[in-house]
Amino acid sequence: MALTNRQIQLAARPKGLPRESDFALVTTEVPALQDGQFLVRINYISVDPYMRGLMNEGRSYANHFNVGDVVLGGAAGTIIGSRHRDYAVGETVLGFWGWQEYAVSDGGGVHRFDPSIAPLSTSLGVLGMPGLTAYFGLLDIGRPRAGETVFISGAAGAVGSVAGQIAKIMGCRVAGSAGSAEKVAFLKTIGFDAAFNYKGVTEYPAALQEACPAGIDVYFDNVGGVLTDAVFTQINPEARIVLCGQIDQYNALTPPQGPRLLWHLIAKRARAEGFLVFQFASRYEEGQRAMARWMAEGRLTWRETIVDGLENTPKAFIGLFKGENVGKSLVRIAEPGG
Amino acid sequence: MALTNRQIQLAARPKGLPRESDFALVTTEVPALQDGQFLVRINYISVDPYMRGLMNEGRSYANHFNVGDVVLGGAAGTIIGSRHRDYAVGETVLGFWGWQEYAVSDGGGVHRFDPSIAPLSTSLGVLGMPGLTAYFGLLDIGRPRAGETVFISGAAGAVGSVAGQIAKIMGCRVAGSAGSAEKVAFLKTIGFDAAFNYKGVTEYPAALQEACPAGIDVYFDNVGGVLTDAVFTQINPEARIVLCGQIDQYNALTPPQGPRLLWHLIAKRARAEGFLVFQFASRYEEGQRAMARWMAEGRLTWRETIVDGLENTPKAFIGLFKGENVGKSLVRIAEPGG
Repeated sequence: MALTNRQIQLAARPKGLPRESDFALVTTEVPALQDGQFLVRINYISVDPYMRGLMNEGRSYANHFNVGDVVLGGAAGTIIGSRHRDYAVGETVLGFWGWQEYAVSDGGGVHRFDPSIAPLSTSLGVLGMPGLTAYFGLLDIGRPRAGETVFISGAAGAVGSVAGQIAKIMGCRVAGSAGSAEKVAFLKTIGFDAAFNYKGVTEYPAALQEACPAGIDVYFDNVGGVLTDAVFTQINPEARIVLCGQIDQYNALTPPQGPRLLWHLIAKRARAEGFLVFQFASRYEEGQRAMARWMAEGRLTWRETIVDGLENTPKAFIGLFKGENVGKSLVRIAEPGG
Repeated sequence: MALTNRQIQLAARPKGLPRESDFALVTTEVPALQDGQFLVRINYISVDPYMRGLMNEGRSYANHFNVGDVVLGGAAGTIIGSRHRDYAVGETVLGFWGWQEYAVSDGGGVHRFDPSIAPLSTSLGVLGMPGLTAYFGLLDIGRPRAGETVFISGAAGAVGSVAGQIAKIMGCRVAGSAGSAEKVAFLKTIGFDAAFNYKGVTEYPAALQEACPAGIDVYFDNVGGVLTDAVFTQINPEARIVLCGQIDQYNALTPPQGPRLLWHLIAKRARAEGFLVFQFASRYEEGQRAMARWMAEGRLTWRETIVDGLENTPKAFIGLFKGENVGKSLVRIAEPGG
């Protein structure tokens, strides 16, 4: 008897902040396995801010979703059936399977994850795309030196919280902003030297000066907007601005406007550089090894915000833009090993 | 009998576009030389857009002028009297002497120029600060590779016209924008593959697409503003944006606003980097040698816009912001050797 699969499709392109009605839950059958295929029971689905851009019509960098497509994104699961000679039942694997409960794969784009190293959920967080984004963005684009000040916007998120801890490991002073008192408290527990709740701030430059009295040498930007405008006024000579995300603008209905910022980069001989984690694909193992070591040494910790049930995936996704998550936001479909 | 010196002082901080009334012509006496000093007859005064920022109250990068100060800037002259053991009458020298006819120097910050290599005026242009700005900005910040497309705003200026020729020497396709048909014609004569008069353009992205059909790999930006906004929409993956100047904004009365641009840098994994030529001071000789060689080989040419008479210096300076100069703008005080 065929297994029933539930999927979430893009029902309409969101206008501004996505609504739950932009998504549709559909039920299908899991197709029978062909030779060279295996069947994955999804355990965790990753929801990430970058997915918002893919829901628009051709404006962002990757392949966009069409209305009626299953919403794609990273997921981690367990092989429960296999006609593939390289993949065995019981293995835990990662793939770009998106918002569904089961996936059939031929192994393309699939990575194994060893659950003896860390819980499977970390494969989508600190040891996965967000952690690697933090690692390569901070170290390769930001190039922090011991003693420098690193400021991180969206610091309590999946990427920001890892970037901040790596900056501490590198011997930097680290400060960050987040959107609630709870998040600010979390940042203090993971070693941030200073943090503030941007929602209570009326004068960003003053808040930044208090958090970063020696100015900002490396800015790891997940947010953009008025906070970033203020950071540009506080950068030190030869500052590096790591452009990781601009979540403040992903739901903009009209092209966002703001003060012209480029002259600051001339005055300070500074650099602003964007990146996408896949450009470091050949070095993912290096990053994962480094972070697993720091985790084992107790120098790198992580936080997850988990909701249960595929049907709650749109809600978890929308919550990213409302600041509802601390650390990595995940949807649990089934407990691994369960 | 003491020599009479004429100087131009900053009479008032300009509001917006400077006016001639912001400057005052004063007459003083040249002081008698002390031991360790020499007297320079200024031949050429350099007027440069960056000086505008120094006329404001503390916003830009260097030491600002005060009202009542002689306006400072690069100048080239001939030693006509010396009580300095290292400098002899007849030598041609460069210094940061500003807008005056004579200067007394102790040799601090002074460089010699060998007039057998090229006319003395080039010491303030292609072989001086503007040329070095083009050389290091293009090669060290922009890092063009053969076959790439380089686009230059303010391409007919002292810096842009040199940057474009160096990009051609590097094997790039080179396009640029300038503010008159005469300037566009000049760009064609010095090897630009495409050029347009931005004043006739209503759709910048379309104009850029026509000039740069393969997209833009290196953008050498002297101008900023709406043209730069459009360039951000036309950059290729891994583009480099060399932030040299933002002349469009130097006379702004209120902080200029525009579309938020940083997300383009993420989408294209691109870099925008500002610089000031003095950060390459230890390598000026390298740049001057390279450019003198290209000049001797006939691969690098230059254009000058020269006005005569110290009293016309404010007018020449203001003309920079009206686009009146082609190539390097200079004020001739006295013909060298004359």
